[in-house]
Amino acid sequence: MLAVWLESGGMELRDLPKPEPGPDEALVRVLMVGVCNTDLELMAGYYGFVGIPGHEFVGLVDRAPSRPDLVGHRVVAEINLGCGRCPRCLSGDSRHCPERKALGIKGAPGAMAEYVTVPAGNLRAVDQAISDRQAVFAEPLAAALEPAQQIHLTAGTKLLVLGDGKLGLLCALGLRHWVPGLVLAGRHKGKLDIAQAQGVATVQSDEPKLSAERFKVVVEATGSPQGLAQALALVRPEGVIIAKTTSREPSSLDLAKLVVDEITLLGSRCGDLGLALHFLQNRLVDPEPMIQAEFPLAQAKEAFAAAGKRGALKVLIKTS
Amino acid sequence: MLAVWLESGGMELRDLPKPEPGPDEALVRVLMVGVCNTDLELMAGYYGFVGIPGHEFVGLVDRAPSRPDLVGHRVVAEINLGCGRCPRCLSGDSRHCPERKALGIKGAPGAMAEYVTVPAGNLRAVDQAISDRQAVFAEPLAAALEPAQQIHLTAGTKLLVLGDGKLGLLCALGLRHWVPGLVLAGRHKGKLDIAQAQGVATVQSDEPKLSAERFKVVVEATGSPQGLAQALALVRPEGVIIAKTTSREPSSLDLAKLVVDEITLLGSRCGDLGLALHFLQNRLVDPEPMIQAEFPLAQAKEAFAAAGKRGALKVLIKTS
Repeated sequence: MLAVWLESGGMELRDLPKPEPGPDEALVRVLMVGVCNTDLELMAGYYGFVGIPGHEFVGLVDRAPSRPDLVGHRVVAEINLGCGRCPRCLSGDSRHCPERKALGIKGAPGAMAEYVTVPAGNLRAVDQAISDRQAVFAEPLAAALEPAQQIHLTAGTKLLVLGDGKLGLLCALGLRHWVPGLVLAGRHKGKLDIAQAQGVATVQSDEPKLSAERFKVVVEATGSPQGLAQALALVRPEGVIIAKTTSREPSSLDLAKLVVDEITLLGSRCGDLGLALHFLQNRLVDPEPMIQAEFPLAQAKEAFAAAGKRGALKVLIKTS
Repeated sequence: MLAVWLESGGMELRDLPKPEPGPDEALVRVLMVGVCNTDLELMAGYYGFVGIPGHEFVGLVDRAPSRPDLVGHRVVAEINLGCGRCPRCLSGDSRHCPERKALGIKGAPGAMAEYVTVPAGNLRAVDQAISDRQAVFAEPLAAALEPAQQIHLTAGTKLLVLGDGKLGLLCALGLRHWVPGLVLAGRHKGKLDIAQAQGVATVQSDEPKLSAERFKVVVEATGSPQGLAQALALVRPEGVIIAKTTSREPSSLDLAKLVVDEITLLGSRCGDLGLALHFLQNRLVDPEPMIQAEFPLAQAKEAFAAAGKRGALKVLIKTS
């Protein structure tokens, strides 16, 4: 099968053997896969990953020895693969298993290929109301909705989403259903316009009126090591910063300010896939305007190049 | 009156006029005052403070035009002086007033003098069961108990206090009444012994058995910019780091780890003075072994020198 292969800071297309599912796995024919910033960082050597990347995908179940009922269904996948034996896994939380693998990120081949194998228990069926192009957003949308699973957001919460990249946009578009009056701050008029068209209040992050405000909750989704300092300047005493940025570079933190103002800084990663599918199925978030381009798998190199351009939105790869 | 005066990175004793209380203030004759690390940092130029330092103190109310009932009472003081007019103050939370002053730290003369004026509403009466030497600890003990006011600690919480300095010791001695099994990690046998003598489990912070563990809550009280990285290595996924360190230097933070492990980092400052007095009155914490030396006000210079020595414990100044 055709697959994207990352190795030593580069990518290439390879013809690899079609994988064979284990007894508890499913073989999934990949339909569409998104290029995530994490994929670009993997390509640049982050995590020392060697293999097939791709963790935002939708596919069709081809074979599933332990779950024949899944065959023929369109699915997305929970990407964290727990060991299944540690206390975390046994309590149902494989997302924080210390030995976990992650599809296309760590220790497990991903979905930028014609086929991928996934533990059958990690698959979630996708309703027909959701297109392939939308379903690819299930994984990042789940991550974008995670702040609402971590802290109690209410309609009156003074909430700022900082950063108008792909993740910041999804955060704003999703979280506004908890906090209709939230504000999205960013630097790119075109991106802010996407959020505004779906009902989000937006502001340029260098506007003086922004720095005059103080927010109870700031979702830091800038993707930059400087975002944390900016969030700290905009959050109010006893407020909460929810950090979504996984920058490779360490961030500099004014710990004294955090202590004196008793700020909470809360890390936030993946989220609930079922909730994201619910949002997509019910048209609570429309990710379509965030799609910049679609490439066939044979042009994966061009897809990565397009995704790597400064300010790029979502690039999709159609795998079959 | 005799007073300590900080200016341009130095300290001296001055003879200053006895202050005159405003209509809502009390004139307090200071009995005893502690030297805090913050005082040493103020002396070094932190906050650009010029004036009389001292915020850990006990005194006798000499005059209080609006509260004659307080006269003759022994008191300690809430050190945050709110503006009294902003939404924070009007909601009863002057600790986070953006215009607040702080006794002996910011915009208001402190208690390293024979007399200090304090808004009468900030005073708390001290029970006769509490000695002057103990009462001086009310302010830092309140700060040490603050983590239990910010998050829900239970008897089963796997809790580590990192740092065996004055604040770390008080945190461990106080918080163990919520979490009897907490562990205090530090580098100084003599200091760990103080905690151990009062029933706290202790460990040398470089012991391998410590780094093999993961804690649900880590109270970072090292006072060092490196403490945060250490705390991050010892906290478990979805755990909480409570930051008590107000280092002048920015801390370097591995934000990616915080995000991936969904760690909460929570700043923690002053606390509830009434609770601290309750702890002292009921002998729940014995601060006496933490007192290293006591100097008369005339020897304040020697007191600061003793407090500034590496590894120093609490130095007190007897003012009358």
